Amino acid sequence: MSDKHHLRSRFEKNMDDLVRDYTASIPFDRRLYRQDIAGSIAHAKMLARQGIISDKDAELIVMGLVSIREEIEGGKLQFKAELEDIHMNIEARLAEKIGDVAGKLHSARSRNDQVALDLRLYARHAIAQTNASLKELQTALLDVAEANIDVALPGYTHLQRAQPVLLAHHFLAYLEMLQRDVERLKDCLKRTDVMPLGSGALAGVPYPIDRVSVAKELGFAEISRNSLDAVADRDFVVEYEAAAALTMMHLSRLAEELILWSSAEFGFVEMDDAYATGSSIMPQKKNPDVAELARGKTGRVYGHLVAMLTTLKGLPLAYNKDLQEDKEGFFDTVDTLNNTLRIFAAMVRTMTVNKERMLQAASDDVLLATDIADYLVRKGLPFREAHSVVASLTRHLIEKGMSFRGLTLEEYKAFSPLFDKDVFAITVASSLAARDVPGGTAPVRVKAALAEARERVAGH
Amino acid sequence: MSDKHHLRSRFEKNMDDLVRDYTASIPFDRRLYRQDIAGSIAHAKMLARQGIISDKDAELIVMGLVSIREEIEGGKLQFKAELEDIHMNIEARLAEKIGDVAGKLHSARSRNDQVALDLRLYARHAIAQTNASLKELQTALLDVAEANIDVALPGYTHLQRAQPVLLAHHFLAYLEMLQRDVERLKDCLKRTDVMPLGSGALAGVPYPIDRVSVAKELGFAEISRNSLDAVADRDFVVEYEAAAALTMMHLSRLAEELILWSSAEFGFVEMDDAYATGSSIMPQKKNPDVAELARGKTGRVYGHLVAMLTTLKGLPLAYNKDLQEDKEGFFDTVDTLNNTLRIFAAMVRTMTVNKERMLQAASDDVLLATDIADYLVRKGLPFREAHSVVASLTRHLIEKGMSFRGLTLEEYKAFSPLFDKDVFAITVASSLAARDVPGGTAPVRVKAALAEARERVAGH
Amino acid sequence: MSDKHHLRSRFEKNMDDLVRDYTASIPFDRRLYRQDIAGSIAHAKMLARQGIISDKDAELIVMGLVSIREEIEGGKLQFKAELEDIHMNIEARLAEKIGDVAGKLHSARSRNDQVALDLRLYARHAIAQTNASLKELQTALLDVAEANIDVALPGYTHLQRAQPVLLAHHFLAYLEMLQRDVERLKDCLKRTDVMPLGSGALAGVPYPIDRVSVAKELGFAEISRNSLDAVADRDFVVEYEAAAALTMMHLSRLAEELILWSSAEFGFVEMDDAYATGSSIMPQKKNPDVAELARGKTGRVYGHLVAMLTTLKGLPLAYNKDLQEDKEGFFDTVDTLNNTLRIFAAMVRTMTVNKERMLQAASDDVLLATDIADYLVRKGLPFREAHSVVASLTRHLIEKGMSFRGLTLEEYKAFSPLFDKDVFAITVASSLAARDVPGGTAPVRVKAALAEARERVAGH
Amino acid sequence: MSDKHHLRSRFEKNMDDLVRDYTASIPFDRRLYRQDIAGSIAHAKMLARQGIISDKDAELIVMGLVSIREEIEGGKLQFKAELEDIHMNIEARLAEKIGDVAGKLHSARSRNDQVALDLRLYARHAIAQTNASLKELQTALLDVAEANIDVALPGYTHLQRAQPVLLAHHFLAYLEMLQRDVERLKDCLKRTDVMPLGSGALAGVPYPIDRVSVAKELGFAEISRNSLDAVADRDFVVEYEAAAALTMMHLSRLAEELILWSSAEFGFVEMDDAYATGSSIMPQKKNPDVAELARGKTGRVYGHLVAMLTTLKGLPLAYNKDLQEDKEGFFDTVDTLNNTLRIFAAMVRTMTVNKERMLQAASDDVLLATDIADYLVRKGLPFREAHSVVASLTRHLIEKGMSFRGLTLEEYKAFSPLFDKDVFAITVASSLAARDVPGGTAPVRVKAALAEARERVAGH
Repeated sequence: MSDKHHLRSRFEKNMDDLVRDYTASIPFDRRLYRQDIAGSIAHAKMLARQGIISDKDAELIVMGLVSIREEIEGGKLQFKAELEDIHMNIEARLAEKIGDVAGKLHSARSRNDQVALDLRLYARHAIAQTNASLKELQTALLDVAEANIDVALPGYTHLQRAQPVLLAHHFLAYLEMLQRDVERLKDCLKRTDVMPLGSGALAGVPYPIDRVSVAKELGFAEISRNSLDAVADRDFVVEYEAAAALTMMHLSRLAEELILWSSAEFGFVEMDDAYATGSSIMPQKKNPDVAELARGKTGRVYGHLVAMLTTLKGLPLAYNKDLQEDKEGFFDTVDTLNNTLRIFAAMVRTMTVNKERMLQAASDDVLLATDIADYLVRKGLPFREAHSVVASLTRHLIEKGMSFRGLTLEEYKAFSPLFDKDVFAITVASSLAARDVPGGTAPVRVKAALAEARERVAGH
Repeated sequence: MSDKHHLRSRFEKNMDDLVRDYTASIPFDRRLYRQDIAGSIAHAKMLARQGIISDKDAELIVMGLVSIREEIEGGKLQFKAELEDIHMNIEARLAEKIGDVAGKLHSARSRNDQVALDLRLYARHAIAQTNASLKELQTALLDVAEANIDVALPGYTHLQRAQPVLLAHHFLAYLEMLQRDVERLKDCLKRTDVMPLGSGALAGVPYPIDRVSVAKELGFAEISRNSLDAVADRDFVVEYEAAAALTMMHLSRLAEELILWSSAEFGFVEMDDAYATGSSIMPQKKNPDVAELARGKTGRVYGHLVAMLTTLKGLPLAYNKDLQEDKEGFFDTVDTLNNTLRIFAAMVRTMTVNKERMLQAASDDVLLATDIADYLVRKGLPFREAHSVVASLTRHLIEKGMSFRGLTLEEYKAFSPLFDKDVFAITVASSLAARDVPGGTAPVRVKAALAEARERVAGH
Repeated sequence: MSDKHHLRSRFEKNMDDLVRDYTASIPFDRRLYRQDIAGSIAHAKMLARQGIISDKDAELIVMGLVSIREEIEGGKLQFKAELEDIHMNIEARLAEKIGDVAGKLHSARSRNDQVALDLRLYARHAIAQTNASLKELQTALLDVAEANIDVALPGYTHLQRAQPVLLAHHFLAYLEMLQRDVERLKDCLKRTDVMPLGSGALAGVPYPIDRVSVAKELGFAEISRNSLDAVADRDFVVEYEAAAALTMMHLSRLAEELILWSSAEFGFVEMDDAYATGSSIMPQKKNPDVAELARGKTGRVYGHLVAMLTTLKGLPLAYNKDLQEDKEGFFDTVDTLNNTLRIFAAMVRTMTVNKERMLQAASDDVLLATDIADYLVRKGLPFREAHSVVASLTRHLIEKGMSFRGLTLEEYKAFSPLFDKDVFAITVASSLAARDVPGGTAPVRVKAALAEARERVAGH
Repeated sequence: MSDKHHLRSRFEKNMDDLVRDYTASIPFDRRLYRQDIAGSIAHAKMLARQGIISDKDAELIVMGLVSIREEIEGGKLQFKAELEDIHMNIEARLAEKIGDVAGKLHSARSRNDQVALDLRLYARHAIAQTNASLKELQTALLDVAEANIDVALPGYTHLQRAQPVLLAHHFLAYLEMLQRDVERLKDCLKRTDVMPLGSGALAGVPYPIDRVSVAKELGFAEISRNSLDAVADRDFVVEYEAAAALTMMHLSRLAEELILWSSAEFGFVEMDDAYATGSSIMPQKKNPDVAELARGKTGRVYGHLVAMLTTLKGLPLAYNKDLQEDKEGFFDTVDTLNNTLRIFAAMVRTMTVNKERMLQAASDDVLLATDIADYLVRKGLPFREAHSVVASLTRHLIEKGMSFRGLTLEEYKAFSPLFDKDVFAITVASSLAARDVPGGTAPVRVKAALAEARERVAGH
C-alpha cells in the first residue's frame, strides 16, 4: 500500500482549514449547549432586574434562547466550525432570530466567565450522574452479596490462599471503596458548586450586576470570591478527574478479580453472555471482554488526569488559551466512568457464581492451618511454638498426601498433647465464625455490615 | 573514563545482598517509628484491658516500647537491613529488652493491619503539617497584599496586558487557590482518619478485641468497616498525592509569575538574596532559583501520583507486596510540598515589589481602551459601535505615536460626538474603581476581600 | 436548569446499547480501512500462491476488497455498530458481495494477528507523516533564521538576560531538537516495520503459509519472530507516543518563548493574524492563541502516553481485550502532533520579527559585563579579580544611572589600570564574534551551522 | 500520639537551613563524582594543549583531581551541603589542595555545560549497565527455555486457555520484548553520546578551545552542534526513562504471570526461597514477594518519566534551575531497572517448573477443539460448518462429563461422517507440531528460534 498517497492527501488540506479545525472547539463543546443557554437566560433576567437592559429585551432574549434549545434538541441547528465554539454558534443564531437585541446579552459578561460557568454547570451535573452510577453498582454488589450470603471462598494475600472469607464480605470491600468514591465526589462538589459569572474577562465588570441572584437562579451554593481566580481556575476538573482515576482503579481491581475468577484455573464465576464473547467452537468458554476492556480503560482515565495537570502547570494568570484543553478529556472521563459503573452493575448482577468451586478452594488445608495454630495458642502454647507445631503437621500431611480432615486425634496428639477432640470443630465455618470483630468476616458481622451498608447507600 | 570499571563493581555485589536491599523497606520506613510505637502501645493496652494478655505483660511491653523510642530519638538504635522493616526492627529490639513477652504484642495483630495503621497515623500528621504550611503561605500573601494595597499592575490574559488590577487582588487569587487546597485536605482527612487495626491479615482476628477503644486512644474518628478493604486500601495516599499535585500546580503558576516578573522585561519584583543566586559580576542581576526549582519540582509530585495510581491498578484483594511501594513517593511528596510552601511564604514576604514599574505597565493605553468603550456604551452607543470607535481611535494614536493622555476633547469628538469632558476621568484608578462587584478588583471590594480572607485563614 | 432531566435521559438508554457502544471500536478503528484491506489483499494473494485457496477465489476476494475500498472512499458504505469493528464491517460487506468465498479469506488468520498488522501499517504511515511534518517545521526555522541572519537578541538563562546570541542561533537550537525527533522516529520505525501476520490467535497457524512474501508485498522489512509476542506487543505504539511526547515538549518550549516574545514587555515578535486572535477594540493587540493551544495540547499527548503504559502494565500473555484501548489515544497523538508541527511551520514563517526591540534588549549592559571581565582576564587579571572589578563598575553605573557606553577611558581606568582604548571595541557584535567555537553563536559559526543543517534536513 | 509535637519540631528548623537543603543537590549528585573528575581532567589537558593554561598548571590540576577521586573512593572526603553540589565540592577541595591554580580549571567552562557533560557521561554508563542486565535476563530465559524444551502449557488469550504452546516459546516471547529493549537503548545511546563541553553558559566560549579532542579523550562519538540546545537539552534522560518504562512494563507482565503461576489455582511454578517469603506455619506456601514488588515498582518508573516530561514542559531557553530536577528520578530509574533485571535473571533460573501441572492444563479439551475443527476443514468442510460440528461435540462432552479422549470413532462419526481414525492423532503434541510456521510454537521452530536467539544475545 502506498504511504505516499496518504501523505499527499493530508498536505492538500489547506492551512486555513487546518488552523480553523485546530482552534475550533465546537466539535466537542456543543455538548455544553444546555448549560450555555441556561446560563444566558439567568444572565439576561438578572440584567433586566438590575435595569441594565429592558424587560422587553430580556423577554426577547429568553424566548430566542429557549427556541434555540429546541432547535438543537430537535437536531435542526447546524453548528458551524467557522463560529468556533458553542457560545458563538448560539450567539450568532440568536442574532439571526432577534436581531441587534441579541448583542445586549453580552453586557457585563465575557467569554472567560461564560465558559467557566458552563463548565461548572456541566461538572455539577456530571457529579450527580456519577454518584447515581456509583449507587447503582453498590446496590448490585449488595444484592449479589445477599443472594450468596452463605458462600465462602478463600481470601487471598499475594494471590495465595490465606483464610476463608464470605463472598459477601469480599463484595463489601468493594462497597467500601465505592462509598469513599461517593464521599469524595460530594466533597468535590463543594468546590465545583461556585458561580463565576460577573468576573468578566478577569477583573470584574463595570455594571451594577447582582451575582447572588444569578447563582440562586442557577442553583449554585456560592459565588466565586476573586475574579482572576474565577476565570483561571480549573481545579474542579482536575479534582473530578482525580476522583475518577481512583474509582477506575477500584474497578480495575474488581475487573482483575472477575477475569481471574473466570479462568479455568479458578472457575469461580461465569460472566453472562451479554458481557462476554463466546467462542464459536467452545460455547462454554467465555472471554470476559467487558471486564478486560474496563481494566484497560483505567489507562485512559489516568491519562486524562495527567493531561489536565500538565496543561495547567506553570500557566500565569489569568485566562490562557491553553485552558480550552479542559473539555475533551473531561467529557471522556465522565462518559467512561459512568458507563463502566453502570455496565458493571448489570454485569455483576447477571454473572453466575460457582459456589462449589469457591467452597472447595476455601476448604484447602492451607486455609485452616492458621486456625489450628490459634487453637493451640488458646490452649496455652506460645505463638511461635504453636506455629512450629503446625508447620511440622503440614509437612507431615504433604508427605503423606493427606489433609487435616484425614487425621485422627492420635495423629494430632503425636505433634502436641494439647490437641483434643475439639480440634475437629475447626472447619471453614468455624474459621469464619471466629473472626467475630467489627469489620471481620464472621457471618453475624457480615450480615450486620450488609444491613448497615444498605442504609448508607439508601441515604446518600 | 572506563565504563567497564563501574560495571564490574556492580556485578561484584552478590545476589543475596541485592535481593535484601531490593525488598528491605527499613531505609525509608524508619521514618514511621513514632507511629509504629504509638500503635503498638495502644494495642498492648487494649489487649490487657480485654484480658488477652496480663496487665503486667502490657506494662512491660509499653515500658520497652517507650525506651526504644528514646533510643531511636537519641540516635542509639542501629537499624538493620536484614530485619527488613521498621516493625521487625522494633519487634527484635523489644525481644532483646523484655524477652519472650515481646511476642505477646503480636496477638490479634498482623503485619498487614499494623502497616496500614502506621501509614494512616503518618498521613494524618502530614495533613496537619501541610495545612499549617498552607496557612503560612496564605498569611504571607495577605501581609504582602495589605502592605501594597495601593499598587496596581496590569491584569493579563494570554500574557497580554488586559485591564488594570490591584496587586492585592492578584495575590488574593492565589489565596483562593490555597483555600481550596486547605478544604480539600480537610476532606481527605475524613477518609484517612480511620483505624484499621483488628483487620488481621485480611479477615479479622479470632480474639475478643475492642477496636473502638484503640481508635479512641490513638485519636481516630472512626474504625474501618471491612477487613479486606482495610489491609488493601491506599486511597488515602493517592488522595493526598492528588491534592498535593493540585497545590504544586498552583505554586508552579505563582513561581512562573515570579520568574516572569523578575525578568528585565517585566521588572516588577526582585527576589531577596536568600531565594536567588546572584552573579559575581552583575550584583543587581538575580536568578530566581528557588521559584524555578519549585516549578521544576511540580514534575516530581505529579510523578509520585502517577506512580501510586499505576502500582494500585489491577491488584486483586487483599494485601499484595506491591503495596510496599506506597511510602517513598508519599514521603517525598509530603516533604516537597511542605518545604515549598514554607519557603514560598518567606520568599514572598521578603521580595521587593517595584511599584513604579507595575504602575507604568498598568498605565499602558491598551488597558484603558476597554474602559473608554464602556464609557461610550454608557452614553448610549451599542456595544459593537463603541468598539469600532475605539478601534479607530487606537489606530490613530499608534500612527501619531501618541497615547490617550495626549488627546484633546476635540480630537476625541472627531471620533464620536458622545465624548465629553468626563472622558478625562478615565484613568487606571477609575478603571479599578469601576469593577465594583463581589470578586472584582475595585479597591473597596479588595479591602473587604482581604478582611474576609484574613478571618477565613485565622479560622481554619 | 434541571439536572434530573439529564439523568433520566441517560438511564433511559438500554443496557444492550450501552454495552454495544462500550465494546464497539468501529467509531474509531474505521480509520484503519485502508490498512485492513491492503492486509487482506496481500493475505489472499499469498493463500492462492501457497495453494491454500484457489486463484479464482483469491481474485474474487481481491476484487471485492478493492470495490469496498472504493465504496468507503466514496462515502457509500454505512458502518454498523453491531458489527463492532472495521474488520467485521469489511468482512460482512465482502460476504454480501461475493458470498461464501469471503469466508476463505479467514483461513490461516485470526483477528489477533490481523489487528496487529493493521495497526503496524498505520503506525508506519504515521511515522512517515510525522517525519515529513518535522522537516516542514525545520525548513521554516531555517528560512526564518537565514532571513534574519543579522539579528541579535539576548540569550537567557533563568529568564535573565545573559549573553547576546543570534536569532538564527536560537532557532538552530530548535532545529537540533527536531533533528533528534526525526532520528528517534527513524529508530522507532525499525521496531514498527515488522510483519505479524501468520501468528494466528497466539501460537502460529496450521497452514503452509509464506509469511515472508506477505511482508514483501506490504513493504515490511522483517517478519515477527514469536507468535505470542506478535499478538501481545504494542511497544511500537508506546514508542511512537513517547517520541511524540518529546516533540510536543520541544514545541511547548518554542510556544512558551513565542508567547513571552509576543508580550508587551518583550515585544520581540508578532504573530500573523491567522495564528492569533485580535481584540475588536485594540487591533494592534494580539493573543497568540495557536501557540497557547499547542502548549496546552502537550498535556494531551503526555496523557496518551501514560494511558497506554497504564493499560499494558501487568497484562499476562497473549492477547487481552484491554489492548483495544491502543487506538484512540494513538490516533489523537498522531493528529495532534502532525497538525501542530505543520501549523507551527506556517506560523513561524509568517510572524513579524521586531529586530529593533531585540537588538535594544541585547544591548543591555548586563550582557556585556561578562565580555568586559573576559577582557580583563585576557589582559592578565585572575578570573575572580576581574569579576570583582566589573562588579564595582556595574554598581557604579547603576548609582549614576549610566551604561557602559557612557564611560570614558579615565572612568574605566579608575577601576583598573588594565583598561585601555580597546575596551570600546566590546559591543554586542564583538561579544557574538568572540564565541567562535563549534556550536557557538559567532556569526561565522552560525552561518556554517545553517548550511550544514540545510543539508541534513534535505537528506533525511 | 501528639501531632503537635512533630509540627513544632519541623517549624523549629530555620529558614536558612531549609532553603539550603531545598536547593542543594550534593545529597544526590555526589554520585557523579567520577564523571565530574573525568570531565575536568579532559578539560584541563585540552586547555594546556591549546595554550590556554600552562602544562604545569594542567599537571597540578590533574594530580589534584586524581587524588580527590581517591579520597572520595576511600571515604575520606566529607561533602558539605553549603557547597551545594558535587562540582563546587570538588572545586573547593581542589583549591585547598593546589591553591589558586585550581581557578584556572574554570576557564572556558561554565557550570551549565559541565553539568550537562557529567550527566551524559553517567547516562552513557547507565545504558551500558542496563544492556548488560538485559542480556543477563535474556540468557536466563534461554537457559530455562532449553532446560524445559519439552514442556507444554496452555497459551492464554483473555486469561482463557486457548491453544497449547511450549514453555520455551512462551519465554521466547519475553526474549523478543527484551531484545527490543536492547535495540531501543542502543538507539538512545546515539543521542546521549554527544559531548556538550565548550557550550559555556549558553552561547559558546570566547577561547580557542578544541572540543573535538575533549570528546575523543572522553570517548564521545560526537560534539553537540548548538550551544543553547546543549545546555538546555535533557532529551537523553527522558529517552532513557521512556525506554525504562517500556522494560518495566515488560517485566510487570512477566511478574504478573509468575504470580498467577505461583497460585494454588495454577500451580505451574514455585519461586525459590530467596525470592519469596514463606509462612512460618505453612512452609510449602510461598508469597512471590520479589515478583510482586517488581510489578509495583513499575509505578515508580512510570512516575519518573512523567516527572521529567512535566519538568521540561514549557521551559524557555536556555538553562533554567528547574533542570536540577533531572537527577534523582533518573538515578532511581537506573537503579530500579538494573536491579530488577538482575534479580529476575536469578529468580527465573532458580524457580521450580511444575511440568505435570502445566501438561495437565494443556491437555484440557478446550485447547484441542480448534485442532479438531481444523481437521474437519482439511477434510473439506467449510470453516463455519466445522466450527458448528465441534460446538455440538463439546456440548455433548460437557453433558456427559466426558473429554475428547473418551470418544469412540462411532461417537465422532455421529457428529460428522468426515471423522476417521486419524482424529485420534490429534493431541497436544500434534497441535504444537501443526503450528509449523516462522514464529510458531512447533517444536522444530522453537528450537531454531532458541538457537537464533542465543546468537543474537551473544552478539549484542
